[in-house]
Amino acid sequence: MYRIDNLQYANWSEKIFRQMRAGRLDAVHVTIAYHENFRETVLNIEQWNRWFEQFPELIFKGRWAGDVRLAHESSRTAIFFGFQNPSPIEDDIGLVEVLHDLGARFMQLTYNNQSLLATGCYEDDDTGLTRMGKQVVREMNRVGMVVDMSHSADRSTIEAADHSARPIAITHANPHFWQPALRNKRDDVIRAVTQNGGMLGFSLYPHHLKDNSDCTLQSFCQMIADTAEKFGVDHLGIGSDLCQDQPDSVVEWMRVGRWSKEIDYGEGSAAAPGFPPMPSWYQDNRDFGNIAKGLATVGFSQTEVDGIMGDNWFRFYEQNFGPEV
Amino acid sequence: MYRIDNLQYANWSEKIFRQMRAGRLDAVHVTIAYHENFRETVLNIEQWNRWFEQFPELIFKGRWAGDVRLAHESSRTAIFFGFQNPSPIEDDIGLVEVLHDLGARFMQLTYNNQSLLATGCYEDDDTGLTRMGKQVVREMNRVGMVVDMSHSADRSTIEAADHSARPIAITHANPHFWQPALRNKRDDVIRAVTQNGGMLGFSLYPHHLKDNSDCTLQSFCQMIADTAEKFGVDHLGIGSDLCQDQPDSVVEWMRVGRWSKEIDYGEGSAAAPGFPPMPSWYQDNRDFGNIAKGLATVGFSQTEVDGIMGDNWFRFYEQNFGPEV
Repeated sequence: MYRIDNLQYANWSEKIFRQMRAGRLDAVHVTIAYHENFRETVLNIEQWNRWFEQFPELIFKGRWAGDVRLAHESSRTAIFFGFQNPSPIEDDIGLVEVLHDLGARFMQLTYNNQSLLATGCYEDDDTGLTRMGKQVVREMNRVGMVVDMSHSADRSTIEAADHSARPIAITHANPHFWQPALRNKRDDVIRAVTQNGGMLGFSLYPHHLKDNSDCTLQSFCQMIADTAEKFGVDHLGIGSDLCQDQPDSVVEWMRVGRWSKEIDYGEGSAAAPGFPPMPSWYQDNRDFGNIAKGLATVGFSQTEVDGIMGDNWFRFYEQNFGPEV
Repeated sequence: MYRIDNLQYANWSEKIFRQMRAGRLDAVHVTIAYHENFRETVLNIEQWNRWFEQFPELIFKGRWAGDVRLAHESSRTAIFFGFQNPSPIEDDIGLVEVLHDLGARFMQLTYNNQSLLATGCYEDDDTGLTRMGKQVVREMNRVGMVVDMSHSADRSTIEAADHSARPIAITHANPHFWQPALRNKRDDVIRAVTQNGGMLGFSLYPHHLKDNSDCTLQSFCQMIADTAEKFGVDHLGIGSDLCQDQPDSVVEWMRVGRWSKEIDYGEGSAAAPGFPPMPSWYQDNRDFGNIAKGLATVGFSQTEVDGIMGDNWFRFYEQNFGPEV
């Protein structure tokens, strides 16, 4: 029914907003901060407000699950904000509610490094949730901002899933059993998230795919079927990690921010430092429907396909974006 | 029906929130910035969020006119945010929408001094709306943030009333014909505001009252009757300017902020630099109903009294807090 891509970080433009419509995306969760502090994040929100004002027939700001329905009914795309780092709240827990008021619905407790809240997946030692991390998870629970552990280390992720009073998410990653990338998640991590009602969004970022850019739609969809078998189909969705039209300077910003004077290649390498090419069957938002076709061929029912394509995220939005009751 | 005080800046506490309820205030517009920049204003919002969390049975954050109704029905007070200076938007027009999202509903284009937007009432020369001022008024119109000219100079106020596509307000001041204080407004200024659908909120701050702290309820209410005669009763409400329990250091902050190293006494003097005592019949929120009694004795009908006590502000909220249609 609803189509939701729960993670993109494109070089946004009217072209891309039109492609969202062409792909019949009812909602997209967009990253609006990697390393930005509070004031810089607000500048990014201002930029989005400008786009909402410029292209009201294509996009609008999503705040609640009901906005997905509104988008569907009015043939537009609801844009939900999220952060891949807790840098926007700085050292101030009061900014969680302020940023929720401004529309933030997902926040990663870490990007790749240690943060004030938890440990990132590239650190050598994972010390789990920090003192502030525990407080912030409770505050996120209270106001309705979803804990996202896509780039966090294993122990931190499991502790977050257990400490959180509400379901958490891994918005964009794949199972480690399929492609043993550092960013992909081991079974016990996925289990900790999903058994508490949390969600896993499958990534189409080539470094997370078997055979990378050459990954086949068949392999991707079979992996989803295998994951559904293990963890339940209701906990699965898409978080494509589409970084369309970004110059390679952006992947450098994502990886290095201001925390290092040396280059860090992250999932890339000195030989291939830039964004890798996307798979042929998922070049941009217009191809979103291809995933539905692929899912139908690996044995999912129509209801299950609908769930993975957006209805599972929709239900998750319904339960997790509002204040704790 | 509804009781609204459209301007207070008290040293907020549980005691005062309980007094609001005792005075049956359904809504209070509170000042949350005098000279604060954006980040400092956000800290003030965080403080209010803490109070909303601590005292949910007494107060909650008001966003729309409907929240006044909700407050009335649930015996609580809806708190609406406003600024007495445009310092919270700094030099960034995009912050108008951001702060509206965070609940700001009134913004003065100036405090007493020249701002980036217009001229304050204490400047020697009044050059009217600036280039940025015109842009910001249009943006405030677009998102539904009310232009407040309480502390602005005459030409600036008249230009704002004329330039604004939506009604503006003088939230807290009295007519100059009754008490010729610098902050009180001349007839042509009140006319410019009210003839475009705008509102005048009567102030109970002693410097704005005939005989100051010794002003009688009778004199205050007769002044309201005379103002209604001239400009129409539908455009009148209360903006008490209650500064309860504030230490005198706060009036110094209001007057001097960080703009001067010398003391500026504003409406006070070296001999009387602090907050003046409030009139005996309006010591705090519990006395709000005394005004209704006084109004009934100077010839207003019950409907007119209800209008001045809150229904006129309520109607104004209904028409001016949402996006331009």
